Parts: sequence; structure tokens; C-alpha cells
Amino acid sequence: MSKATATAHSNIALVKYWGKRNSELMLPQNGSISMTVSDLNVNTTVEFGSFPEDSLVINNQKLNKGTEEYDDYVGIFLNVVRNVVKKDLKAKIVSESNFPIAAGLASSAAGFAALALATSKALNLPTDEKSVSILARRGSGSASRSISGGFVEWKRGEKEDGTDSVAVQIAPKDHWPEFRMLTTIVTSSAKKVKSRAGMAQTLKTCPYYKGWLESVNQDLDIVRKGIIEKDFTSVGQTSEFNALKMHATMMTTKPPIIYWMPSTLEIMQSVMAWREEGLESYFTMDAGPQVKVMCLQKDVLELKKRISELNGVQQVIECKPGDGARILDRHLF
Amino acid sequence: MSKATATAHSNIALVKYWGKRNSELMLPQNGSISMTVSDLNVNTTVEFGSFPEDSLVINNQKLNKGTEEYDDYVGIFLNVVRNVVKKDLKAKIVSESNFPIAAGLASSAAGFAALALATSKALNLPTDEKSVSILARRGSGSASRSISGGFVEWKRGEKEDGTDSVAVQIAPKDHWPEFRMLTTIVTSSAKKVKSRAGMAQTLKTCPYYKGWLESVNQDLDIVRKGIIEKDFTSVGQTSEFNALKMHATMMTTKPPIIYWMPSTLEIMQSVMAWREEGLESYFTMDAGPQVKVMCLQKDVLELKKRISELNGVQQVIECKPGDGARILDRHLF
Repeated sequence: MSKATATAHSNIALVKYWGKRNSELMLPQNGSISMTVSDLNVNTTVEFGSFPEDSLVINNQKLNKGTEEYDDYVGIFLNVVRNVVKKDLKAKIVSESNFPIAAGLASSAAGFAALALATSKALNLPTDEKSVSILARRGSGSASRSISGGFVEWKRGEKEDGTDSVAVQIAPKDHWPEFRMLTTIVTSSAKKVKSRAGMAQTLKTCPYYKGWLESVNQDLDIVRKGIIEKDFTSVGQTSEFNALKMHATMMTTKPPIIYWMPSTLEIMQSVMAWREEGLESYFTMDAGPQVKVMCLQKDVLELKKRISELNGVQQVIECKPGDGARILDRHLF
Repeated sequence: MSKATATAHSNIALVKYWGKRNSELMLPQNGSISMTVSDLNVNTTVEFGSFPEDSLVINNQKLNKGTEEYDDYVGIFLNVVRNVVKKDLKAKIVSESNFPIAAGLASSAAGFAALALATSKALNLPTDEKSVSILARRGSGSASRSISGGFVEWKRGEKEDGTDSVAVQIAPKDHWPEFRMLTTIVTSSAKKVKSRAGMAQTLKTCPYYKGWLESVNQDLDIVRKGIIEKDFTSVGQTSEFNALKMHATMMTTKPPIIYWMPSTLEIMQSVMAWREEGLESYFTMDAGPQVKVMCLQKDVLELKKRISELNGVQQVIECKPGDGARILDRHLF
């Protein structure tokens, strides 16, 4: 069998990944924690064979050699795979997402998680979560977290070969089914600075990056414990603060990277004001303008209503703790 | 003579002051550089005598004992003055500004600069720039910079008694008359977190404050040299970056202090986009939502037009390098 299809969901980080210590092996500077979400998913079919060249179609758009997606992302990943199987197989990849690409909704996380699992299946490589997580990491660091469902921690690891830099489940989705992320889309445009380039630039130029690394382990401890104990205030406060810390390193990178839009800030300020009124919710943003509002199930209706009324909000997607990546029987081609 | 009137202008910092090392003497953690501006001013008349108590009127509003302005600001300053003259004189103070108070337009800087000079004159204290700068500092740190005109550096100083923590002129206003700050008002509401409380909280809780202190001396060197050489790109780039660094420490204070409004961000993003098109301008923001756009005289008309068209912009005030504080002959009462 040289053809397989997999589906994977995006994950939204509670403690963020920002910065690599090894960009070839995609080893992070710090550990991170995320929730794999129920409603943002990517399906990918891959076939290996003696094609004249690799081909890539994302959301019905063919991406050619020379594009950033083809060369820097899929091209590099496929070379990793060819190195593993010691064969010069070419790949045909077709991928479909149900949400906008490259706008801070972890499209590359879901995309490479699905691709890594489909690839492992197609080439008879191990398909256990650990092995697939390590392979997915080589495509996009945060993809390592989308292999498992529920609440997931990507361990930084210490080894130089990256074999201990792997995502593990903290708790399955049924552990805390009331936890919600209201993913609020304020633009569907692709972001100007991709995460990969942005984090490399932060490492080189940001005077606060050292402070980020010095304070992130404490965030990991608090959020991990908060998830296990289902302590929403603790998880929300620390996750929100961690997101602000990450964005603060982006803004103080040379040249500055400002992913926020006016609507991003309006949602942030509103969440803070509602919280003061007693409606407990927290915000987090990844490398893009979208805001994910953390809340509990009981407040979803009220929050969805209030968020939808804010300026510039295009869509609010209610995300629950979701499943990890899995094989599908039906192929996309 | 126990009655005097002085006028002083606001100043807008190019390298920011954020954090005290001694809150009684108002000694800063770091040096700062500002431009004293032409168009935002405060006039203050003070009279000392045997009144039953101190009285304070700002923009025709009487502020009573028990208000923050009265107790934390003017009350403390007057006690400093009484300590200097060793007399239990009471003061009657009337102050008028031509711009909104406490919204990030350096009202306290202009206010205490005018009050310090009027006080020095009324009580026959020394009225040279150095002496008045040191007295003004005791009311509000940044007020020390509004005593001199043009471009001014407030030296951090090293001494424990604060006698070397004084503002000195880098260059007079005629050195670089083409330099402009387009002060853009997006709200006239008073800010929620005053600078004094905010900076104390940052010192206590911000993981990036150490990085701020480690990197600010380099900013001071670049901006000072840029002013002397009239290198607009150098001054603009470094000032903008310094402002982002300060706001990044505010955002990563517990609880987070976010002074920006959606309009603030829209102006920032627009300035960055215009610059890419070749219209050279830079932004800076103090502890409030207003944005000051730095540019050269030749681009003022085009920028004023573009800024005025942005969402939420109420007013654009063109500020040139301005005069220092001076005595007026006409009293307000």
C-alpha cells in the first residue's frame, strides 16, 4: 500500500511555542501545551510512487516548485521521509481544510499532522502516536501536538537527535468536555510574516526573548496542573498571560512583527471588561490576528452573542476538546 | 512676592521613562530623551500664604483633599516644597491646559513643570533650569524634561540624593525645526491605570523588565546621536522600537496593562504600511491610547490628511520642537 488518507485537527496552544533550538530537526526552545480542537480539521491523501516530481494541491489550488509552501514546507518534509525509507519515491499530496490557511488557525499543525500520519500508513512506517508525533514535528513543530487528542504537551526534550522532543497527552478530551475555545475570525487573509521566519527573527533580535525562556517553565507547570485539576481560572489567567508574553516578543523583534488587527484588540479589551463584570473568559492569540476566547460551556451562548456584535468579527467557531489524528478509508483522489 | 505664574509645554519621549528606583525622590531606573513640544501647554498660577488649606483648580474644576490628583500628586509636591523652605505655607494653585488631562499627552509633565517654575519664582528659590528640573521631577518624573526646550535628556544619575538626576538640553528647538510630532487623539477619556501605579506594578511583576533595562542605554546613545546629526531614520526607528518595548513591558505586567485602543493599532499599522510605500514616518505612544507620528515637515500635509481619514481619529495636532518653561506676567487669578 502506497496511498493513504488521514485527518487531523488544529490545536490551539495554551502555552506557546516560539523559537527553535535546531531548525533542521525542528527542536523547540521551550515546551508547549495545547488543546486539540474539534472543529478545525484538515484531510490529506498522499500517494508515493515513481512520479516525475512531487505534487501538492491544497484546497484545490496546485502549489508549484518555487512557492514557499512547496519548497520550505512540504519539500523539506518529503526529503525527511525519503531519508527515512532510503528510497527516492515521489509524492502526490492533496489536502483540504475547512478553514482559512495561514491566518493563525494552526493550519500547518493540522496539515502536517494529517500528512505525517498518512505518510506513515502509506509507507508502512510505525503509526503509534509517539513515532507519528516526531515525524509530524519535522514538517511543522506544532503539528507534533495534533497527533493526540484532548490536552497535549509537547516536551522540549534534551537530546540532540530530537527523539525525546515529542508530544504526549496530558488528558483526553473527555476529561474536561466543558472547556471551550471560541475561535473568532476577524480576517481570512494570509498573514504577512510566517511563524517560521518570525520566530527565527525574534531569536536573533528580541531583547525580551531571554525573559520569555526564563518564565515559560513556570507557565507550563501551572497550566499542566490546572488542566489536571480542571481549574479554569488558573488555566485561563496563565494562558492569557503567556499569549501576551509571546506577542510582546514579536512586537519587540526587529523589524517589529505585529499580528494584531484593530478587531483583535477590541476583542481582547472586551474580554477583559466582561471578566471584570463576572463573565469569566480569557483570550489567546497565535501568530495571526484571530482571537480564541477560552470559556466554559455554560457561558458559550452569552459570549458568542457578545463577540459576534463586536466590530470586524466575521465568524465565531465553537471548538471543544477534539480527537487526535486518525486514518480515513476514503481518499481525496 | 508669593504669587507667580508659569507656562510649560508637554514633552513627548523618544526614549521612554518607565520605572523608578526611588519613588520618594522620583529617581528613574533609566535615562530618557524627549522633545518638548510647541502646541500642548499648561499655564499655572500659584500663590503661597496662610490659607486654611491647599487648594487646587485644574481646568476650572476644584479638586479636593482625598482625590488622587490632590493627595498623590500636588499634596506630595507641596510637602517637598514646604520642606525646602522650612515654612508651613499653604498654596492656592490654578492650572489650565489646552488639551485633555491624563490621557497620555504628558499633562502631568507640563503641569508640574509649570508648577515647579511658578513655585520657584513665588518663593524666591533658584530659577535656573537645573534647579527647577530637579524640583519638577519631585512632582512627576517626566516633568523634569519640560523645563528645557527642544530636545532634552533626563539623565538617570547615580547619586542617592538625586542631585544628578536632572534633565539637560541635547539641542535647542532651532537645531531641527523640521522635526514634527503629529499628536493624534483617539479618545479624550482619562486612562484607567495611571503611569505611577503602572510602572510600580511592572517593576514587581514583568518578566521582561530586566531586558528593558539592559537594552535602553543603547537606545539612548542612538537617539542622542541621531538628534545631534539630524538623522531622521535613526531617531524614528529607534524611538518606535523603544515605544514598542515599553508597551510590551506594560502588557506583560500582572495584571496586564493594555493602553492601546483599536484606533491606536490602526494608526500604528497604517504608519508601518505607509513607510513601506516610501512615506517615512514612525509612531510612538506613551501611557495612553494616543499615537504621536514622527515625521519631517515636508510630509506633514500628506500625513495629516491620511491620519485624519482613519477610524476613530478625533484630532491631529501638529507639534514642533517647542520652548521650555517660562514665567508669565499675567496671573490666572
